Amino acid sequence: MPRSHGSEIDRLIQLLARLPGLGPRSARRAALTMLKKKDAVMRPLAAALTTVADGVVACEICGNLDAGSPCHVCTDPRRDRTTICVVEDVADLWALDRSETYNGLYHVLGGTLSALDGVGPEDLAVGPLIRRIQEDGVTEVILGLGATVDGQTTSHYLAERLSEAGDVRVTALAHGLPVGGELDYLDDGTLAAALRARNTIGG
Amino acid sequence: MPRSHGSEIDRLIQLLARLPGLGPRSARRAALTMLKKKDAVMRPLAAALTTVADGVVACEICGNLDAGSPCHVCTDPRRDRTTICVVEDVADLWALDRSETYNGLYHVLGGTLSALDGVGPEDLAVGPLIRRIQEDGVTEVILGLGATVDGQTTSHYLAERLSEAGDVRVTALAHGLPVGGELDYLDDGTLAAALRARNTIGG
Repeated sequence: MPRSHGSEIDRLIQLLARLPGLGPRSARRAALTMLKKKDAVMRPLAAALTTVADGVVACEICGNLDAGSPCHVCTDPRRDRTTICVVEDVADLWALDRSETYNGLYHVLGGTLSALDGVGPEDLAVGPLIRRIQEDGVTEVILGLGATVDGQTTSHYLAERLSEAGDVRVTALAHGLPVGGELDYLDDGTLAAALRARNTIGG
Repeated sequence: MPRSHGSEIDRLIQLLARLPGLGPRSARRAALTMLKKKDAVMRPLAAALTTVADGVVACEICGNLDAGSPCHVCTDPRRDRTTICVVEDVADLWALDRSETYNGLYHVLGGTLSALDGVGPEDLAVGPLIRRIQEDGVTEVILGLGATVDGQTTSHYLAERLSEAGDVRVTALAHGLPVGGELDYLDDGTLAAALRARNTIGG
């Protein structure tokens, strides 16, 4: 018989261990920390989980997850409504928005095309994207997909579909050295891309 | 204005980031994973947290955290009731019990003596331990404290107090090579301890 810490605590540890970044050992540590801070962490976390589970929905326009639909990005009057940045996932949307360098709208695609995983255009939010471009006065679509094979395939596919769909400028995030990146640690593909996209500086 | 993901999600991420092993980035990933698995992970986790927060208490005898007091270790009739293993923390109790090599009872001390942190004997569960030894027919106390300076100081203090308190054998966990440990990665203290505690093998 494997010894347990009592079935409720075991169940909690099992559930915590399903979160990314937590294995069985750190889930146990997390459970124990919370048991010692019931009122400061455990009960507020339970309440926050319930609130979010009940209240958070996918935005009907862009696919962002937020307390209401349309989300706070789509309803923000200070946003530039003529630009849409297409991202793979909500995590990418959050990452871009955290950088505070972009002030337009987003569109969550829900994945990338992948022959291997059997993901075709009909599995992604491509139709709604084209409708938004045709109906909402969008002048530029920035393709913010990952620099992976699937990401780039999807970018090419979207660029073609979007140019057929209407008069819209399609751009993509630049490739090059990551800020702080040292040359001898970078892969050949990045170096080649950075070299091809080189810029004139100075005089 | 720093951009947010909606206040409920932000609050959830903040709370998750307080767990050991999760920083702000992994808390965000965990929140996003749960948002995609509301019914498989998020709601069950909220329920488990509430159940544990409401149901789990510290055992009045040994200090273990369990669904009831006395805990399932203290009430288990198959346990050897003449031996008590003294540990610093509930995590240590769980770790020892998981190893399934010990079949006695436990006593959670709640810390170690520390002049630096101002922890004296009155801050630890020393009195209750001595009462258990005097009243419950205990014949051996195993000091299962860490091999740190504070842990060893506490062990020496306890050994003295326990020998005054009654006729009980006081032992401590052995020091030596960890199983799987390679000599050239071990510190001098461990090597010295292992050498001092060397055993005769073979003929």
